[in-house]
Amino acid sequence: MSAYFEKLDRVGFEGPQSDNPLAFRHYDAGRIILGKTMAEHLRFGVCYWHNFCWNGVDVFGAPTFERPWHEAGDALERARQKADVAFEFIGKLGAQYYTFHDIDVAPEGGSQREYLQNFQAMTEYLGEKQQATGIGLLWGTANLFSHPRYAAGAATNPDPSVFACAANQVFHALNATRYLGGANYVMWGGREGYETLLNTDLRQEREQLGRFMQMVVEHKHKIGFSGTLLIEPKPQEPTKHQYDYDTAAVFGFLKQYGLEKEIKVNIEANHATLSGHSFHHEVATAISLGIFGSLDANRGDPQLGWDTDQFPNSVEEMTLIMYEILKSGGFSSGGLNFDAKLRRQSVDKYDLFHGHIGAMDTCALALEKAAGLIENDRLSEFVCKRYAGWSRPLGKAILEGEKSLADLAELALEQELAPRHSSGGQEYLENILNKIIYG
Amino acid sequence: MSAYFEKLDRVGFEGPQSDNPLAFRHYDAGRIILGKTMAEHLRFGVCYWHNFCWNGVDVFGAPTFERPWHEAGDALERARQKADVAFEFIGKLGAQYYTFHDIDVAPEGGSQREYLQNFQAMTEYLGEKQQATGIGLLWGTANLFSHPRYAAGAATNPDPSVFACAANQVFHALNATRYLGGANYVMWGGREGYETLLNTDLRQEREQLGRFMQMVVEHKHKIGFSGTLLIEPKPQEPTKHQYDYDTAAVFGFLKQYGLEKEIKVNIEANHATLSGHSFHHEVATAISLGIFGSLDANRGDPQLGWDTDQFPNSVEEMTLIMYEILKSGGFSSGGLNFDAKLRRQSVDKYDLFHGHIGAMDTCALALEKAAGLIENDRLSEFVCKRYAGWSRPLGKAILEGEKSLADLAELALEQELAPRHSSGGQEYLENILNKIIYG
Amino acid sequence: MSAYFEKLDRVGFEGPQSDNPLAFRHYDAGRIILGKTMAEHLRFGVCYWHNFCWNGVDVFGAPTFERPWHEAGDALERARQKADVAFEFIGKLGAQYYTFHDIDVAPEGGSQREYLQNFQAMTEYLGEKQQATGIGLLWGTANLFSHPRYAAGAATNPDPSVFACAANQVFHALNATRYLGGANYVMWGGREGYETLLNTDLRQEREQLGRFMQMVVEHKHKIGFSGTLLIEPKPQEPTKHQYDYDTAAVFGFLKQYGLEKEIKVNIEANHATLSGHSFHHEVATAISLGIFGSLDANRGDPQLGWDTDQFPNSVEEMTLIMYEILKSGGFSSGGLNFDAKLRRQSVDKYDLFHGHIGAMDTCALALEKAAGLIENDRLSEFVCKRYAGWSRPLGKAILEGEKSLADLAELALEQELAPRHSSGGQEYLENILNKIIYG
Amino acid sequence: MSAYFEKLDRVGFEGPQSDNPLAFRHYDAGRIILGKTMAEHLRFGVCYWHNFCWNGVDVFGAPTFERPWHEAGDALERARQKADVAFEFIGKLGAQYYTFHDIDVAPEGGSQREYLQNFQAMTEYLGEKQQATGIGLLWGTANLFSHPRYAAGAATNPDPSVFACAANQVFHALNATRYLGGANYVMWGGREGYETLLNTDLRQEREQLGRFMQMVVEHKHKIGFSGTLLIEPKPQEPTKHQYDYDTAAVFGFLKQYGLEKEIKVNIEANHATLSGHSFHHEVATAISLGIFGSLDANRGDPQLGWDTDQFPNSVEEMTLIMYEILKSGGFSSGGLNFDAKLRRQSVDKYDLFHGHIGAMDTCALALEKAAGLIENDRLSEFVCKRYAGWSRPLGKAILEGEKSLADLAELALEQELAPRHSSGGQEYLENILNKIIYG
Repeated sequence: MSAYFEKLDRVGFEGPQSDNPLAFRHYDAGRIILGKTMAEHLRFGVCYWHNFCWNGVDVFGAPTFERPWHEAGDALERARQKADVAFEFIGKLGAQYYTFHDIDVAPEGGSQREYLQNFQAMTEYLGEKQQATGIGLLWGTANLFSHPRYAAGAATNPDPSVFACAANQVFHALNATRYLGGANYVMWGGREGYETLLNTDLRQEREQLGRFMQMVVEHKHKIGFSGTLLIEPKPQEPTKHQYDYDTAAVFGFLKQYGLEKEIKVNIEANHATLSGHSFHHEVATAISLGIFGSLDANRGDPQLGWDTDQFPNSVEEMTLIMYEILKSGGFSSGGLNFDAKLRRQSVDKYDLFHGHIGAMDTCALALEKAAGLIENDRLSEFVCKRYAGWSRPLGKAILEGEKSLADLAELALEQELAPRHSSGGQEYLENILNKIIYG
Repeated sequence: MSAYFEKLDRVGFEGPQSDNPLAFRHYDAGRIILGKTMAEHLRFGVCYWHNFCWNGVDVFGAPTFERPWHEAGDALERARQKADVAFEFIGKLGAQYYTFHDIDVAPEGGSQREYLQNFQAMTEYLGEKQQATGIGLLWGTANLFSHPRYAAGAATNPDPSVFACAANQVFHALNATRYLGGANYVMWGGREGYETLLNTDLRQEREQLGRFMQMVVEHKHKIGFSGTLLIEPKPQEPTKHQYDYDTAAVFGFLKQYGLEKEIKVNIEANHATLSGHSFHHEVATAISLGIFGSLDANRGDPQLGWDTDQFPNSVEEMTLIMYEILKSGGFSSGGLNFDAKLRRQSVDKYDLFHGHIGAMDTCALALEKAAGLIENDRLSEFVCKRYAGWSRPLGKAILEGEKSLADLAELALEQELAPRHSSGGQEYLENILNKIIYG
Repeated sequence: MSAYFEKLDRVGFEGPQSDNPLAFRHYDAGRIILGKTMAEHLRFGVCYWHNFCWNGVDVFGAPTFERPWHEAGDALERARQKADVAFEFIGKLGAQYYTFHDIDVAPEGGSQREYLQNFQAMTEYLGEKQQATGIGLLWGTANLFSHPRYAAGAATNPDPSVFACAANQVFHALNATRYLGGANYVMWGGREGYETLLNTDLRQEREQLGRFMQMVVEHKHKIGFSGTLLIEPKPQEPTKHQYDYDTAAVFGFLKQYGLEKEIKVNIEANHATLSGHSFHHEVATAISLGIFGSLDANRGDPQLGWDTDQFPNSVEEMTLIMYEILKSGGFSSGGLNFDAKLRRQSVDKYDLFHGHIGAMDTCALALEKAAGLIENDRLSEFVCKRYAGWSRPLGKAILEGEKSLADLAELALEQELAPRHSSGGQEYLENILNKIIYG
Repeated sequence: MSAYFEKLDRVGFEGPQSDNPLAFRHYDAGRIILGKTMAEHLRFGVCYWHNFCWNGVDVFGAPTFERPWHEAGDALERARQKADVAFEFIGKLGAQYYTFHDIDVAPEGGSQREYLQNFQAMTEYLGEKQQATGIGLLWGTANLFSHPRYAAGAATNPDPSVFACAANQVFHALNATRYLGGANYVMWGGREGYETLLNTDLRQEREQLGRFMQMVVEHKHKIGFSGTLLIEPKPQEPTKHQYDYDTAAVFGFLKQYGLEKEIKVNIEANHATLSGHSFHHEVATAISLGIFGSLDANRGDPQLGWDTDQFPNSVEEMTLIMYEILKSGGFSSGGLNFDAKLRRQSVDKYDLFHGHIGAMDTCALALEKAAGLIENDRLSEFVCKRYAGWSRPLGKAILEGEKSLADLAELALEQELAPRHSSGGQEYLENILNKIIYG
């Protein structure tokens, strides 16, 4: 097979001053930061769907991309051709991982059986590509939202046989993920939600979703899949309301079904912002609740109310994310998957490289800056000092349950407590942050 | 004491055609709907703060209202004068309940002790007013957000002595609520959140809030308060992020601290919409999770990003709310508190009546329409039929845990499942709804 | 040709109590309201694109609708089949008008010439259908956003030959509209905007758009098209920013190019709300600026940030719209086009009727309510009284330019002006409105 | 008078590595960039209201700041004390300019006459302070929104005598601005808008506002004020809708009243984002329309729907702004006013320095990066090349009005135009931008 990206052999690291648009300026895979290589820290993943499946169509317009593997032809052959280009791309880019939905990689077919045959054939093919290239699978997933049968949901569908079809896909996608050595398995419930409350039984649908997740956990253990199960929150789109709205909603759901030790979250930047939170908030919240798993690194547009899935390019924002992750000990099975797509006008095939190179440089630089924050962590110092009272006798006694409301009321009155607020130091801390980013 | 609203004796019911702006057109307290009077169904509450404490100030402008009790003078005397007007107003309006924060009704004083003395004096005075008028207390609460000491939170403050001051207020406010026969006690954590993650320890603050809520529950039981404890979710404002963001977030919090049987939610329409949900969504979600308690009936402005607290005037929206509540059996301890305020330009004192009369008529009419929906419940019929598969063998087996992922995968393949999506009927259902509202 | 909607002959008026979901409850075409029939007032239009071109696809999912004319086959034959169904539908529904884009009705073809041949063939066919049914054309338009050539805009494209292609389409679409007796011609600049400012020359693109609009106006006069030219504002989607953002932006554009007497606006409810305004605001603003033309009646979802194009079902909102239109003298060439689509789950073909029947009943009822408001117009009375000072000497002198800043400063000081704010009466007015809607 | 900020003499420039939180890391006033000093480029202004008038109050809480000049006392003496601190602060900070509202600097008094006496006294005092310190006035303005008389607007008030009071204030504020050598005069119509359309006559209010602006222009010329008149757009807050919604709305208004050569815009970052636009969009739009004047540099919170007025701290965002301004030739009379306030929790008086130092460093660094972009302007190169067709014969002929719609239609058909879309290069351009920012 001849190369699709014929004018490029491999994206190299050339340093911040390089004017080569097809080189890294900051991502230097082997460079050591806080005791690990950049590659080990960042665990970049390239997604199949936006890069190799999407053809540039949008709600108001026809395809613009003209990829050869989107042309008519034998479906499995096209799928192999697509895989070839995908692995060529990821290899030349120098990312370590990829991510996919079942029907991204294999033709859906016209029946459950055809689906399975195609998927199994392609799983083997992907296994060969992995072996040949050394590229690994960050996570697999099943597409439970595109087929018309899922119009009213998959696990939450009013029809149990749709639930069974969804189970079939997840069964095979999870098996395939194990076969391919995937580090995680992701569940995004794109249509697990509602369009109108008028036709929806919320309690019933929640029960269905709870049972579905339990089944997946049971199956994971049964087959000995050692990766992490992840739920990806999103507030809406395509549904009016998605049950996995945000990290807090997922946490409540996991607690209700006893799954909070079994499933973590895969947080997407653009989903975070659509849900009314900052990306930073969602990551910090997940870490504080002990359910942080992995990232879909992208960005939305602050003025647009849908998932624009742009490549991340803000070092300012990404530094905060990497800072939280480093503080929590770094990724374990998770990584940085770019759930990002070219703009529809970016029709040059090398734009795929521009998008990913910019994104990887952004993350690499953010890692570097975050390490700078950690090494002399004046932010954490400030925070420790701010909460110091909670390590002293009164604070401890309260948290350890030794004080009742009456005790404290008495204390307040007897000691005539009149605590004075001291500065929250927000502007001061923001300056410290910028000092590290722009120092 | 002479009347403040001298030109009005009592707001009467005059029927839909009345042109009297100071009469009800739809709220007929004693009218029977589905076996209960309108008053028993709706349990209207008038809030102290917006009506009697707020002076018309906004972030960009000076007070506009010129109420006599806001003039200089002896603080306790002004407080009694305010209470007199409040009870005169509620009585003439014919609402059954009122709601208050501790420092709405009593001068805050300059110390913990003064606070307590004032509050106790006023609690007694309120008790006398209740007795004299027959007006009851829907809920009490403590203001844990206005005093400068709470700038960085109350229970979640970095300083434990602020926590203790908060405990003091809640101790006394809960005691007062019990003394006054309050049906509920509400906790709105207006500053339980953060301004910047840079200075915030999320896990620490959550622990503090968890312990605080447990203390309140313990105290409730200790004093034998038979009302319901309620948390009022709000996503932000004044904070950048409030921990009790929405019903789903509160549910996760309650589960984490084992409080889901002890505390319910008080849902405010405008808080719901600020959190990215419809009011209907929040109510239906709370009911489906078993934590629905009470309502702050108001409305926001769909174009504005802050809490405008306008009086509810959409029968279309309110009908859906009343429909959910009727389906769930109606309010138990909860009710319809109008957490609504006049527009700052509505400087005529009788505007207080216009606001409440419109709101009460809106709710009464919505109750009537919702009863119409219930009586011949074609919406529920449609929903039942839609989910019928879950009462059949396959659906039951799935929900009862008798099927594994592998079982269902096998079923899908062997039976070559190819379920067809049937119409969700949204437009049809919307027409049914409008038929009842405008029939 | 046999009927597609075989189980229905014609949607009849059966009155508010009817339980027939395929009958009107409020729209009674011949009923006289304020001297005109409902049909004359409302001038309903059914759009081609959502109803007959869209197949139920969304960004995350495959088609769900399975219409026979979407199957493979001879393109022109399918186009005629589609036209047959469209006219069957509109006729059975009893709407007076339809609306279309050039490539909704005719196959786009593979070249400019094929486009033209197909379009001319279908224009004739549509003419025959109009004649046979009595259905008229509310407006025509050209689709300048779907073809890949328009990815970076049509009139504002960086490439003048794309501008020329756009000119070709508008030339023929305007000619066709004249041929078909269209009452208006609409221009929606879906891709006249930008994705990123980094590659955009705002001044250049505005000049292009200005010239394009002038050309259209010149051509209109040249061919003697007597209908109205309309621009349809929308803030974004598919672009990040659309130049015709809202009515105010369009007004500034028209003034700059001297077109404010030549072009009016076609206001869509969902575009209004996406731009941060209420539908009411956009209509009232356009009327106040003298550029109100026509309506795309639909609704968005207050929680969603994209154009959901749902059928209008709020009588409360629509009454305000009809009230503004009645006050301004009613539609002249404009009308109520339903730029609304079924939910993707509404796969029953009769759902098309449910959507439109609900929408038409909503508008009819709103017309009735608005007429009630007008007949005894206490809202206008209040407004007149509120601004009465501007008809008195001081107000007149100011507006007629007889006073300078210095004159008024002197006046303020000499007379020690201390005007007192009187109540804006918002709650009172809202109650009057609800009295009429629910009286 | 002894110093208020006693521990600081002057904020010095210490370079990027400095750990001194009270030093500049990037703002080096005298450093030459593209031929002008940083100070000449940036023209920093410190605002009176947020820094010296606001006491830390918010809608839900009491003052937190405890500034000595907010204590009780003789009003004029307090005003002088406030001015002393203001000039001490600005001098120590090393900003060149300040900005104020009339009633920020002088007690409002109880009558028009008292207002004038106080304001004149303080104007003289400010003149002396300016002379003593060398600090200049970037712009003055009148507060036409805080007094209760303005509850329903100033120029757009239903009562002409309120209009006259507003005229009185602007008359004197403009005179004072001229007296103090102000470079600009700003008009922000905070209450020139509406709360509800039900009580509003849009056309009438627009006429009033148009006449008011004309009066101001006439007066400016009469007194020979050589500064620039500026309107500051904002979409809402405190009103539901403000007429000066955004730059596009202001442009249309100016065109309607023939003022587009007389009045420019003062763009505030947070107002831009509240109106649904990026700050970059508003600046680029104003420049492209020829009405760019000055900036209120601050930032909002992407998750909050009100004006948070935070200090700018994003070099990434600010670089785009400075790039646009440099490309357009730099500020003329305008500058960078920090319409920014401390967080309410930032109660340390030196937080005022932290806020401004961070903001000034952000802008200085952005200037430096923007100069880097300009010096080798690959962005502009790309844009020029992208639009090159418009300098060739066809493009020129179109823009010069030599082609009709018919001409172009003929051209498209005869030449069978089939233009191909070429890449918009967004990702590539974003990488170039980041290369300069992080190079």
